[in-house]
Amino acid sequence: MERVEHHASFGGSQEVYLHQSSTLGCAMKFGVYLPPQAKRGKVPVLYWLSGLTCTEQNFITKAGAQRFAAEHGIIVVAPDTSPRGEGVADDTAYDLGQGAGFYVNATQQPWADHYRVYDYVVDELPALVEATFPANDRRAISGHSMGGHGALMIALRNPGRYRSTSAFSPIVAPSQVPWGQKAFTSYLGDDRETWKQYDTVELIKNARERLPLLVDQGLDDEFLQEQLRPNLLQAACDAAGHKLVLNQWPGYDHSYYFIDSLISYHFAHHAAALS
Amino acid sequence: MERVEHHASFGGSQEVYLHQSSTLGCAMKFGVYLPPQAKRGKVPVLYWLSGLTCTEQNFITKAGAQRFAAEHGIIVVAPDTSPRGEGVADDTAYDLGQGAGFYVNATQQPWADHYRVYDYVVDELPALVEATFPANDRRAISGHSMGGHGALMIALRNPGRYRSTSAFSPIVAPSQVPWGQKAFTSYLGDDRETWKQYDTVELIKNARERLPLLVDQGLDDEFLQEQLRPNLLQAACDAAGHKLVLNQWPGYDHSYYFIDSLISYHFAHHAAALS
Repeated sequence: MERVEHHASFGGSQEVYLHQSSTLGCAMKFGVYLPPQAKRGKVPVLYWLSGLTCTEQNFITKAGAQRFAAEHGIIVVAPDTSPRGEGVADDTAYDLGQGAGFYVNATQQPWADHYRVYDYVVDELPALVEATFPANDRRAISGHSMGGHGALMIALRNPGRYRSTSAFSPIVAPSQVPWGQKAFTSYLGDDRETWKQYDTVELIKNARERLPLLVDQGLDDEFLQEQLRPNLLQAACDAAGHKLVLNQWPGYDHSYYFIDSLISYHFAHHAAALS
Repeated sequence: MERVEHHASFGGSQEVYLHQSSTLGCAMKFGVYLPPQAKRGKVPVLYWLSGLTCTEQNFITKAGAQRFAAEHGIIVVAPDTSPRGEGVADDTAYDLGQGAGFYVNATQQPWADHYRVYDYVVDELPALVEATFPANDRRAISGHSMGGHGALMIALRNPGRYRSTSAFSPIVAPSQVPWGQKAFTSYLGDDRETWKQYDTVELIKNARERLPLLVDQGLDDEFLQEQLRPNLLQAACDAAGHKLVLNQWPGYDHSYYFIDSLISYHFAHHAAALS
């Protein structure tokens, strides 16, 4: 593993690493923010999953998270959103292929050889992080849009693995919206039963662990009605008796300006659960 | 003037405008953050001048300034760093031509037709801002690297126009370092006497107004010894009895991670002077 970036930040450091992922079969980058508290002992880790078109750079340069990671003493790990490279299948559309892994394990060709981002995020990356950095085994997971889908879905599927989860502007029901239907058809095939394991609204129905969900959503989000549909999550949580805090913000859009405006509250939420 | 971006941010809005600049003879973009207080009346304005290669985007997406502009009720205006467009002279190097206006009025060809960024920042842009937005006439000016040079130099040359100034990692003595010598030779010609009007260390010697200078500098900045040389500013201020607060930070580099880490202190500095 090679450190390719290192910047002092809020008394700690923002770093970027390059490693060969055995799960994805390609070289991958991820961002790691090490707070000042990590110089003195092991601290918890928040995993951040980014949205469509993002690399490991978007969150670490735009979200303003380091200020609050330093305040609360939390390592923040921000992986890339898909396998990458010349030997990795791709598509010309922004919402399929590289930059659009959707946090699933693909079963269909040409995707199945590399697109195993679910396993990468759930297993390989935490094992690497906990072996390499001063990280204890307390984990939280959050994300934006496609990454909000990833964060909620992964937390629901892995009871006991995460102490808290949250999302900004998540795709809550990928099986019911165009982005998700396109990706799941390509990566998983036509059998919709196989889609349910990656669909938060479906998973809520049988969640074994009652991890509360924190979701913030802008009401001027250009993708709100067609792709995000937080009302479906509200209805599913109401039906299952699953705790959801869904904050809806007039005027806010799908950009990192929204994330930056609310990130302090998400860190407070995770810090309370991680402490 | 056309609004080309609008994003809710910390209860206010981050906007980007496109206008035809009469000073620069081309279309220009600038960022404007409008804090929530601007909905209720006129508020002060902080001008932010960016560094080499930047557009109006770098500061507004990376610095985390909106949080503190909203807290203190300050409009933040972030112009581009040079004239732009196909009809505007350019150079293949990153430190000359488009993206590298150096906040001077060029007198030499091929630059003199468009490169009048000093006049644009000092006159045209504030007049436009104060006529268009809920801005009063209380102004502050800050910037980074080439823009730190611009902020300190412009404040020193315009007594009474700015209530406060500060800089991150500024080029304090452009006449004495490679970046400045290259730009000034191209834009202003070989007569070094004409350079002095744009050189902070030279201007300190005869500053009419004793505006205190706040400068933050990372000690792992890759440009520290060759291009920035804050010791020259310290010596000039000591000799002239000009108040300077020069904070030097071990481990920090030239990136926006440094700016983000310290931006709250600069806003506190400006807010005290603007209130």
